[in-house]
Amino acid sequence: MVAKYENESLKIFSLNGNIPLAKKVAQVFGTDLGQCSIKSFSDGEISISIEESVRGVDTFIIQATNQPVNDYYMELLIMIDAMKRASARTINIVLPYYAYARQDRTANPHEPITAKLVANLLVEAGATRVLTLDLHTVQVQGFFDIPVDNLFTMPLFAQYYREQDMTEDDYVVVSPKNSGVQRARSLAEYLDTTIAIVDQGEVETDEGYVIGDVQDKNCILVDDILNSGKTLAKAAELLKENGAKKVYACASHALLSDGAKETLEQSEILDICVTDSCLTEKSRHPQNMNYITCSKLLGEAVKRIHDNTPMSPLFNKVDKDFL
Amino acid sequence: MVAKYENESLKIFSLNGNIPLAKKVAQVFGTDLGQCSIKSFSDGEISISIEESVRGVDTFIIQATNQPVNDYYMELLIMIDAMKRASARTINIVLPYYAYARQDRTANPHEPITAKLVANLLVEAGATRVLTLDLHTVQVQGFFDIPVDNLFTMPLFAQYYREQDMTEDDYVVVSPKNSGVQRARSLAEYLDTTIAIVDQGEVETDEGYVIGDVQDKNCILVDDILNSGKTLAKAAELLKENGAKKVYACASHALLSDGAKETLEQSEILDICVTDSCLTEKSRHPQNMNYITCSKLLGEAVKRIHDNTPMSPLFNKVDKDFL
Amino acid sequence: MVAKYENESLKIFSLNGNIPLAKKVAQVFGTDLGQCSIKSFSDGEISISIEESVRGVDTFIIQATNQPVNDYYMELLIMIDAMKRASARTINIVLPYYAYARQDRTANPHEPITAKLVANLLVEAGATRVLTLDLHTVQVQGFFDIPVDNLFTMPLFAQYYREQDMTEDDYVVVSPKNSGVQRARSLAEYLDTTIAIVDQGEVETDEGYVIGDVQDKNCILVDDILNSGKTLAKAAELLKENGAKKVYACASHALLSDGAKETLEQSEILDICVTDSCLTEKSRHPQNMNYITCSKLLGEAVKRIHDNTPMSPLFNKVDKDFL
Amino acid sequence: MVAKYENESLKIFSLNGNIPLAKKVAQVFGTDLGQCSIKSFSDGEISISIEESVRGVDTFIIQATNQPVNDYYMELLIMIDAMKRASARTINIVLPYYAYARQDRTANPHEPITAKLVANLLVEAGATRVLTLDLHTVQVQGFFDIPVDNLFTMPLFAQYYREQDMTEDDYVVVSPKNSGVQRARSLAEYLDTTIAIVDQGEVETDEGYVIGDVQDKNCILVDDILNSGKTLAKAAELLKENGAKKVYACASHALLSDGAKETLEQSEILDICVTDSCLTEKSRHPQNMNYITCSKLLGEAVKRIHDNTPMSPLFNKVDKDFL
Amino acid sequence: MVAKYENESLKIFSLNGNIPLAKKVAQVFGTDLGQCSIKSFSDGEISISIEESVRGVDTFIIQATNQPVNDYYMELLIMIDAMKRASARTINIVLPYYAYARQDRTANPHEPITAKLVANLLVEAGATRVLTLDLHTVQVQGFFDIPVDNLFTMPLFAQYYREQDMTEDDYVVVSPKNSGVQRARSLAEYLDTTIAIVDQGEVETDEGYVIGDVQDKNCILVDDILNSGKTLAKAAELLKENGAKKVYACASHALLSDGAKETLEQSEILDICVTDSCLTEKSRHPQNMNYITCSKLLGEAVKRIHDNTPMSPLFNKVDKDFL
Amino acid sequence: MVAKYENESLKIFSLNGNIPLAKKVAQVFGTDLGQCSIKSFSDGEISISIEESVRGVDTFIIQATNQPVNDYYMELLIMIDAMKRASARTINIVLPYYAYARQDRTANPHEPITAKLVANLLVEAGATRVLTLDLHTVQVQGFFDIPVDNLFTMPLFAQYYREQDMTEDDYVVVSPKNSGVQRARSLAEYLDTTIAIVDQGEVETDEGYVIGDVQDKNCILVDDILNSGKTLAKAAELLKENGAKKVYACASHALLSDGAKETLEQSEILDICVTDSCLTEKSRHPQNMNYITCSKLLGEAVKRIHDNTPMSPLFNKVDKDFL
Repeated sequence: MVAKYENESLKIFSLNGNIPLAKKVAQVFGTDLGQCSIKSFSDGEISISIEESVRGVDTFIIQATNQPVNDYYMELLIMIDAMKRASARTINIVLPYYAYARQDRTANPHEPITAKLVANLLVEAGATRVLTLDLHTVQVQGFFDIPVDNLFTMPLFAQYYREQDMTEDDYVVVSPKNSGVQRARSLAEYLDTTIAIVDQGEVETDEGYVIGDVQDKNCILVDDILNSGKTLAKAAELLKENGAKKVYACASHALLSDGAKETLEQSEILDICVTDSCLTEKSRHPQNMNYITCSKLLGEAVKRIHDNTPMSPLFNKVDKDFL
Repeated sequence: MVAKYENESLKIFSLNGNIPLAKKVAQVFGTDLGQCSIKSFSDGEISISIEESVRGVDTFIIQATNQPVNDYYMELLIMIDAMKRASARTINIVLPYYAYARQDRTANPHEPITAKLVANLLVEAGATRVLTLDLHTVQVQGFFDIPVDNLFTMPLFAQYYREQDMTEDDYVVVSPKNSGVQRARSLAEYLDTTIAIVDQGEVETDEGYVIGDVQDKNCILVDDILNSGKTLAKAAELLKENGAKKVYACASHALLSDGAKETLEQSEILDICVTDSCLTEKSRHPQNMNYITCSKLLGEAVKRIHDNTPMSPLFNKVDKDFL
Repeated sequence: MVAKYENESLKIFSLNGNIPLAKKVAQVFGTDLGQCSIKSFSDGEISISIEESVRGVDTFIIQATNQPVNDYYMELLIMIDAMKRASARTINIVLPYYAYARQDRTANPHEPITAKLVANLLVEAGATRVLTLDLHTVQVQGFFDIPVDNLFTMPLFAQYYREQDMTEDDYVVVSPKNSGVQRARSLAEYLDTTIAIVDQGEVETDEGYVIGDVQDKNCILVDDILNSGKTLAKAAELLKENGAKKVYACASHALLSDGAKETLEQSEILDICVTDSCLTEKSRHPQNMNYITCSKLLGEAVKRIHDNTPMSPLFNKVDKDFL
Repeated sequence: MVAKYENESLKIFSLNGNIPLAKKVAQVFGTDLGQCSIKSFSDGEISISIEESVRGVDTFIIQATNQPVNDYYMELLIMIDAMKRASARTINIVLPYYAYARQDRTANPHEPITAKLVANLLVEAGATRVLTLDLHTVQVQGFFDIPVDNLFTMPLFAQYYREQDMTEDDYVVVSPKNSGVQRARSLAEYLDTTIAIVDQGEVETDEGYVIGDVQDKNCILVDDILNSGKTLAKAAELLKENGAKKVYACASHALLSDGAKETLEQSEILDICVTDSCLTEKSRHPQNMNYITCSKLLGEAVKRIHDNTPMSPLFNKVDKDFL
Repeated sequence: MVAKYENESLKIFSLNGNIPLAKKVAQVFGTDLGQCSIKSFSDGEISISIEESVRGVDTFIIQATNQPVNDYYMELLIMIDAMKRASARTINIVLPYYAYARQDRTANPHEPITAKLVANLLVEAGATRVLTLDLHTVQVQGFFDIPVDNLFTMPLFAQYYREQDMTEDDYVVVSPKNSGVQRARSLAEYLDTTIAIVDQGEVETDEGYVIGDVQDKNCILVDDILNSGKTLAKAAELLKENGAKKVYACASHALLSDGAKETLEQSEILDICVTDSCLTEKSRHPQNMNYITCSKLLGEAVKRIHDNTPMSPLFNKVDKDFL
Repeated sequence: MVAKYENESLKIFSLNGNIPLAKKVAQVFGTDLGQCSIKSFSDGEISISIEESVRGVDTFIIQATNQPVNDYYMELLIMIDAMKRASARTINIVLPYYAYARQDRTANPHEPITAKLVANLLVEAGATRVLTLDLHTVQVQGFFDIPVDNLFTMPLFAQYYREQDMTEDDYVVVSPKNSGVQRARSLAEYLDTTIAIVDQGEVETDEGYVIGDVQDKNCILVDDILNSGKTLAKAAELLKENGAKKVYACASHALLSDGAKETLEQSEILDICVTDSCLTEKSRHPQNMNYITCSKLLGEAVKRIHDNTPMSPLFNKVDKDFL
């Protein structure tokens, strides 16, 4: 039987975003999640009460901010305020998925930079450290002046594909849009392949075309956020038109909004690998999708933060025990 | 025909909370609302774009934060960030209803003070001034270090009842709970009546009893937030049991959550007077409810902020032209 | 003989406000107060020197800010600055009485919110936590973003009256003014009584009247701040006029300004129970006044802060060992 | 008759420190002081209310912080808070005398730097600019990150002595202590004299001796703060012992604490020239003391701040019209 | 003859980074640069003095932070401090080149984010707005919470190539490394071409290969920072090997460190177009390099900031009068 | 053999300013310096990488900011940013020499206060404590709100001269300029001598004259910063002209800019004693100069900061073991 909190100086709490993932992270410590109650009043206000003492404790709050995005962020901000007033020693935020990360610049005049706003709000509320997973752009780290550890999912996907011998010359890693080239570059290095790009804008619905050679190759599309599935599906179609053999795909964060299941099931993609960073209902999962867990990676990072041991091994590209 | 912005140094914007009220406030200036687009992506993220220049402009953003509370606050925070980056000269927030205002203290250990958190977030995002209407507790003003003008609704209700000669000895103003005595005290001064109290806790469902003399008197219950209607209905019932003749009620903010319509229509209350600070669907409005508008009061306050003329006349207890 | 500081990681200092109380708090730890010298120069400037090392120490500074209010606050701010520059690990402020707490809102336009100003100054100087006793309004907690523990005196008064069997049907707890209803409500719950209110404004000298039934009952008036004694005396008179049998009173903070002794001795109040949060000269104490100590409550709270054990038991309504 | 406020964009207020000086400063503008009420409650708390609108106004608050130092600083901080909440456009603090300026470093370990604390408190409360007169050490300017204009009194004293032809070879300017050499240097340049120093520590009561040649010369002692008069009297005595002919003295700030009148009247000093920066009762003024006014200098500086015209002419060493 | 400052409310200053460019920007207003002196002491300290009043003025400080990077940043920070203390109304920083912009993330653990540090330092010193030109990554905008306008150089290069009819099917825009795809995408849209990528890492010296079709096409390489010239030269070589006809290049910021002249002159690139954002000695300019000026673009932006007119036309992709 | 880091909770790093001194400081702990790499790119940017984990560690960064001043400050700021993001527990800055300390006030209008700017930048970057050695003016301590320990060199010089019996009546300590009197006063107390002053301005090249009696005495000039050597040389000459026997000198910080060697060797000074706070090339050292080390003093201070033991013994004037 698992003892509750051998080490009382660390407590892990989960809000409503992704409780199953949080439980798995806690299991890395052989512990349960901290007790807290989150209520919604009939007028829509959220009320949070921490139900055990956190005075002097290093607290970790796990919250994936997928749908409903704003409610989940507000939960998080209120929880941080509660932790601060309850005298937690440190308030460490674990964001397996960082919503609004794509709004990281003013694309047009008179626009907000909501990814920065979110960073400012978290720090203002009282967060003392942030742990993220595959941020949309790594520059978002610099939106904070508190320490941010951004973990990468590429090693997880690399392991997935290497176990299936999907490496080297027969394969090409493809970015499904012109802004994701470096993520493709990173996976390609793990798999010893070349890369190619499908040049389609992020927002527009223009035609798109393939840059680079995919003729008679098996393609692995790689993206960070899988929302409607249209970008991947369109890219897969273009790859096929350009002579690709088989098309696979992986994505870090499976948001799976309405219609994604159908779009992906009807696409040319044979297998889509995603992490469990976001929690969605089973009924939204396409049949050609496989989940791998990021919980060990997150758990190990939490452990290293708490123990003040270096985080650097988690960023190495060689095999790691904890994967 | 109304000229658009005679004075380009002032622009009034509305978010989705209560657009009809915002339009009425803008009409005090004979102007239209500023152009901005608010979109929701399929993944739940909000995207805002201001569609006219606000560089060097005194901007007012009107947002009532009733349901969905968290979405409306996030809209507001994102809009403030956009205004700041678009170089607005001042960013004045008009909150006809300030959600989370009741969470203004730690009732129990390990609880947040969400009303303070909201104040911190607004200021962190970039708000330079706040205009509120009948805050749940006036101390919330002190949660801010930027100027806060808190307008009162009691003059509006006083005018409503005085026009119907509901004053003096036949009437008693009643607080429906032990924490609202001073609001009752204020209305009683306008109407030259005594006060009474229904001693029932805010959260609990204990019995309650009447403190003070209501026998053969007409009672006017007064509260700030009307959510489920249960507090008012229960109070009316107790007043009747204690010999009250007729029972009326007024409340500043009509949230009208599920069931409120039925509760209020079946209650002993003959007429419920509320302001239009919150927007709800017509189908939620009880038949015994009357709306009076707070738009002239808010508009006049916005005008005085912009013109740097004193706000104090708006707080006087004598009749005012703008009512 | 008492050992000086068994635990060198905690040091308790007292400024001039209420040294006897501070000594009693230190005794909870079986320790002496830390050494510091406070001088006044001939030009009125205060000079403070901490006379032992506080490098890396959790420091507690006890200061009751009754008369002379401004000198005592300045002492406190200077001491905090000294602690910060001398590298104290934490600077915990214990305010048995929080002067200026009543100036917690802008009652009229163009007024300061001095209670908030005081909070800002304490934090700016370097305070990292605050411990208060029966704040005038609990919302003042939200004036801080550092942790604030506000202890209640009602359990102390409850014990005082329960030991004398002053409970249940023969008694009624009375708020001497319309703004103190919730304090009365709290004591009434401990004593199983109903409540009543004397409706008199805080500043004005209008007539006032009793709301609720006090005929043939023994009344216990309850207030937080006892300054001139006029509010209590007037309330007692009105209660008597309304048929009350005996009248008692309790108040958390006995400021006892000029004339209070005479006013209270000549009043209808048989016994006035106050805490020792404020220190005044013996010659100012009315003969019908009894002091109970808040030192054990404060000492226990300091202990829990230092040991990182939960504060929540101190807020429970059941009997407590430390009372 | 003087018109009240021709220019409504500027308002000058005075607190209780030195109202006569403030009135003279206001006269530079041909205006009256702004209306505000400052009350002391029986419990020692100060209550301030600004009695005219300052919305959008450039406000100047004049407060000399001589005795009672802490009350006057608290008045000032509360007034700043009120100004901020009443939406003043700028809050300019005029400190003819900056109390605590001598506590500008940690002379010993475990000491505060109270001059910095005061700067921090003023800025935290909401001050946007500071105007001072002959700061004890000019480095105190750097304690602020808001603009600070520090005016010098040396030109005023220079004019006083030049009008009496007290210049050149027969005279020597003397610093009465080893830390005031540069103030002596500055006056000496105006009067074309050499300088000498009396080497006595600021706090100690050691013997002291004269450095430099004063034999058969008339000496002008110069200091910034005249409190007990002992430093000047002791220095004069030593100068006489070293062969000085006549001894004169000047000091910027005449605090005149208990005993100063006697000490100075019985000293070797023929004439002591001070400014009216501090207000004290007539009965404290020694017969050998003459007041010159700093009001025109301050008034001119206020005018230049308000008009955005350069302050630099006020620092020139040539004659100035406004003196 | 040019009138000096018709509008005294605006003053443009230049530090040592790129005075010729600053003068051209000032000419957009028909004005001279503001007077200031910048000295270097023999011990290496910089001393700055503003030699005209800036009280109440909107100031613009132009500083290109190419070599010597740290001296130029220190000049800038000191100048901002001086402006703040001299009471400038606003302090607008114009950075034609933003050094350290490439250090915008922690590439490895234990690394700084120097681009964020620079942003923090500028704001801490007192900058109120920033104007940049073609930031290395647009996310750096979000490193600031003050308004940042980032102008693009692509319209300038587009005009350069369109005037030479270098558009459409015969041409392909090429990113010389895998991280610059979106800059290539932007220029390609102006010129109606496809894009290709040379896949070589930023730091490593690995082989590299071409992604996309360049056979028999004229290639236009596009990059932001041209330092050693090696990235462009290597890319040009690879393009030639892949069958490219002619190779051209453009880059926003020509740093031209040691060896760049030789590398570029010996490369396959026929013509290199750069802006005058950075100033270097003539002797460092390769013969195949052409300068176009960004001064009109910057000047127009400064004008719009000062006049509070919208900046958005400067971001449009259609022709503009000011180019 | 020396064990590397017995105590892993403390790590000492050195930047490029004065590595030999840093190594000596580390030896006080019997440890090596922490590993970090500092590179300069060809474009002048500095790149820093900490090469061991500092997560949870108390870090000390030693950097003397002599020439090249700006590069060394930028190194320091970047290192602090890296430490902050790498989660160091505390970031303690050791500045044996604090460049820009003389720019500690606005000598003329429109000037910066660069010493304050530097303080602001260090704190903004993330410094949590500062250790300095003989600051030019002690008031610079108050430029910080984090703890600052300013060590004095006078005990070191006192020991140097006492070992040579250079004390009492035959000697006089002389300040070479009118602003250094208190430093002279301090050394004189150690050596039981009188003091004298050479009245020459800091910047100007006016004549100067001696104040006080030096006839037939041996003079010890004392200053903090030795840059060009001209101030000391000129003072020595004047002393000789006034009948001084032998002239010696000491200075805390030996910057030794171009020409200093010649100026000092050709001067009347027999022996110049300086500390090793600044590192310069051997070829710049005058033959009449002797170095004493400040490393033990600094090392002892670092030890006391880390161990939370009192710093006060280091400020005592009696002999100390660690000297």
